[in-house]
Amino acid sequence: MTSTPPIAVVGPVLVIGTGLIGTSIALALTRAGVQVALDDVDAEQLKLAVTMGAGTVLGDAQSQLPPSTIVVVAVPPRFASAVIAQASKDFPTATITDVTSVKSGVLQRAIALGADKYRLVGGHPMAGREVSGAVGARKDLFDDRLWIVSPLSESGASHYENVRNLAITCGAVPIEMSPQEHDEAVALVSHAPQVISSALAAQLLPAHANHIAVAGQGLRDMTRIAASDSSLWVDILSENAGPVSEVISEVVRELQEVLQVLQELAGGDQDHEEIIDATLKAGVKGRARIPGRHGNIEAPFIEVAVLIEDKPGELARLFVAAGDAGVNLEDVRIEHVLGKPSGLVELSVKPEVANDLVHKLSLRGFDVRGSA
Amino acid sequence: MTSTPPIAVVGPVLVIGTGLIGTSIALALTRAGVQVALDDVDAEQLKLAVTMGAGTVLGDAQSQLPPSTIVVVAVPPRFASAVIAQASKDFPTATITDVTSVKSGVLQRAIALGADKYRLVGGHPMAGREVSGAVGARKDLFDDRLWIVSPLSESGASHYENVRNLAITCGAVPIEMSPQEHDEAVALVSHAPQVISSALAAQLLPAHANHIAVAGQGLRDMTRIAASDSSLWVDILSENAGPVSEVISEVVRELQEVLQVLQELAGGDQDHEEIIDATLKAGVKGRARIPGRHGNIEAPFIEVAVLIEDKPGELARLFVAAGDAGVNLEDVRIEHVLGKPSGLVELSVKPEVANDLVHKLSLRGFDVRGSA
Repeated sequence: MTSTPPIAVVGPVLVIGTGLIGTSIALALTRAGVQVALDDVDAEQLKLAVTMGAGTVLGDAQSQLPPSTIVVVAVPPRFASAVIAQASKDFPTATITDVTSVKSGVLQRAIALGADKYRLVGGHPMAGREVSGAVGARKDLFDDRLWIVSPLSESGASHYENVRNLAITCGAVPIEMSPQEHDEAVALVSHAPQVISSALAAQLLPAHANHIAVAGQGLRDMTRIAASDSSLWVDILSENAGPVSEVISEVVRELQEVLQVLQELAGGDQDHEEIIDATLKAGVKGRARIPGRHGNIEAPFIEVAVLIEDKPGELARLFVAAGDAGVNLEDVRIEHVLGKPSGLVELSVKPEVANDLVHKLSLRGFDVRGSA
Repeated sequence: MTSTPPIAVVGPVLVIGTGLIGTSIALALTRAGVQVALDDVDAEQLKLAVTMGAGTVLGDAQSQLPPSTIVVVAVPPRFASAVIAQASKDFPTATITDVTSVKSGVLQRAIALGADKYRLVGGHPMAGREVSGAVGARKDLFDDRLWIVSPLSESGASHYENVRNLAITCGAVPIEMSPQEHDEAVALVSHAPQVISSALAAQLLPAHANHIAVAGQGLRDMTRIAASDSSLWVDILSENAGPVSEVISEVVRELQEVLQVLQELAGGDQDHEEIIDATLKAGVKGRARIPGRHGNIEAPFIEVAVLIEDKPGELARLFVAAGDAGVNLEDVRIEHVLGKPSGLVELSVKPEVANDLVHKLSLRGFDVRGSA
């Protein structure tokens, strides 16, 4: 999984911006044997990235940059357009790409500022966690991750190939989407859910502590991303305002349909429970469309629930037992139990091995609460 | 944790309805040495419960039921009111309680049908998972769980005490709420989140598969409960229509405020990003009010991310290493990585032990991706 990918772009590659993503790209390219030049307005971040082995400072390497190289703009969204346009002028034959989490607006503004459309191909590595700064960078941050490659209709084929190969060289799996399609996709799967999570979590602010005390795992899951950095998200949401507002409109419309039926029911009026049922059933089907970890429709895993004591070593004992049983765990959830230190662990496994796992865990003295 | 609780109610207790909850209550009472009589219209479920050691069939025990006993009505919500009223007549001195997940309507209808208000005290054990039938019952299902006890204003003190002690005898932690307060609490923390999760997941139904393919953990978390049984939820939502509609109204109002700003931004109008920021910030604060596993404000745990290979034994090796390090894991998350079999595991630990854990895992050759 962390072996060097078979395809490597021709370097040197210039990475502008040595934060988490930029430095991680530089480290991944260095791992693949590609020469990397680095630039950053923040001299300290730049120095740290060099110290971490991510590459050499641009001033030292610029004169050797061959005309075929790639420039990766990995600066914060608000600076991306200007830096892309400047890079396009400074490196007049290079492929220019970026890593910004919203694409259409950033690329359009870069073009308006003079970026060469033919050499510009947008990019967005789906790199999981938000840990900022070079200090959090890892050479394997993109291993097995999707990397959206967003060519413009004017992008040249060789420049598109360069960015695809850049993603592959970094260990990622490239997936092509137009800038508009990218923005619609992330609005649906990331940006709108963020707003909805925040709007729900905001209802907890004026609530009685007693009411919140009975919260279970459902509310915790629904509000986890609401804890995210709000200033970062204001920028992202504002930048992708159109696509996000379309998804939220649809969710609001769906909620209002349910709301009307609930209000009629509460008022003792004729009920239309089939409307509630339709939303719930659509939700069941929509949820089932989220791909499983192997890129297919989510497999109907069986959940085996085990009650374990809250002390060091208990989870280890459980997973050793599961490992000894030869069962691969598809997912693990730990339920938080209020008031007392104890925990229900749910192990998701393939249906055909569930009974065997239940049996073997029980033999080891585990408190298996059955499977479902 | 599974030791016999110190307080035991005076038996025998009659449990009507030998599904998951009823049979689990009977098993928990039996564990505590309390004599239990069982009744169910479903002879097969009843027989299974008896076979599991949950108690004796009512017909065999009825004549010995002393006047001080408790009747627990654990039937599906749509039958609860009638069964409560009938039990109140059949056992004219007993404390009558139930386990229905919505309280006001069920109790009011039971009273309208002739139940004695003085002896009626509602109950709702917060028993986590939905696994139906006696077959899924466990004597420790309620251990360390909250059990909401909902007296009417007319409920007698001794009957209230009986239901409190019933909860404690079953291993649970009783918490008092009026029926109305109970319904508002579960609307906020459970019922409205269910509708919102479904409404969001419903948007995935018409979406392009490519768009859904880029989904991360956020969308998975937000839509997990959308996979729940829709027919069960139609009943619950209809029964608690008033309180649920109030929470959803507020969420819709919050979403519409954000939506208006986003639509203005998308149209190029003057922006009011501070309105988006206010919702996001309220979400951060609201989320922080959800109690941690020890009943306090959620501790600011550090997440240590480790990339492990997707094969049997790897999780075991990780947790053995964590156990050997003497570190207690507060939570575990496994990120699903699309396309390739690999997994990022996030271990939540107390801040003071994070560095030590990172160090010890790295020494064992684990691919630790840093902590945050």
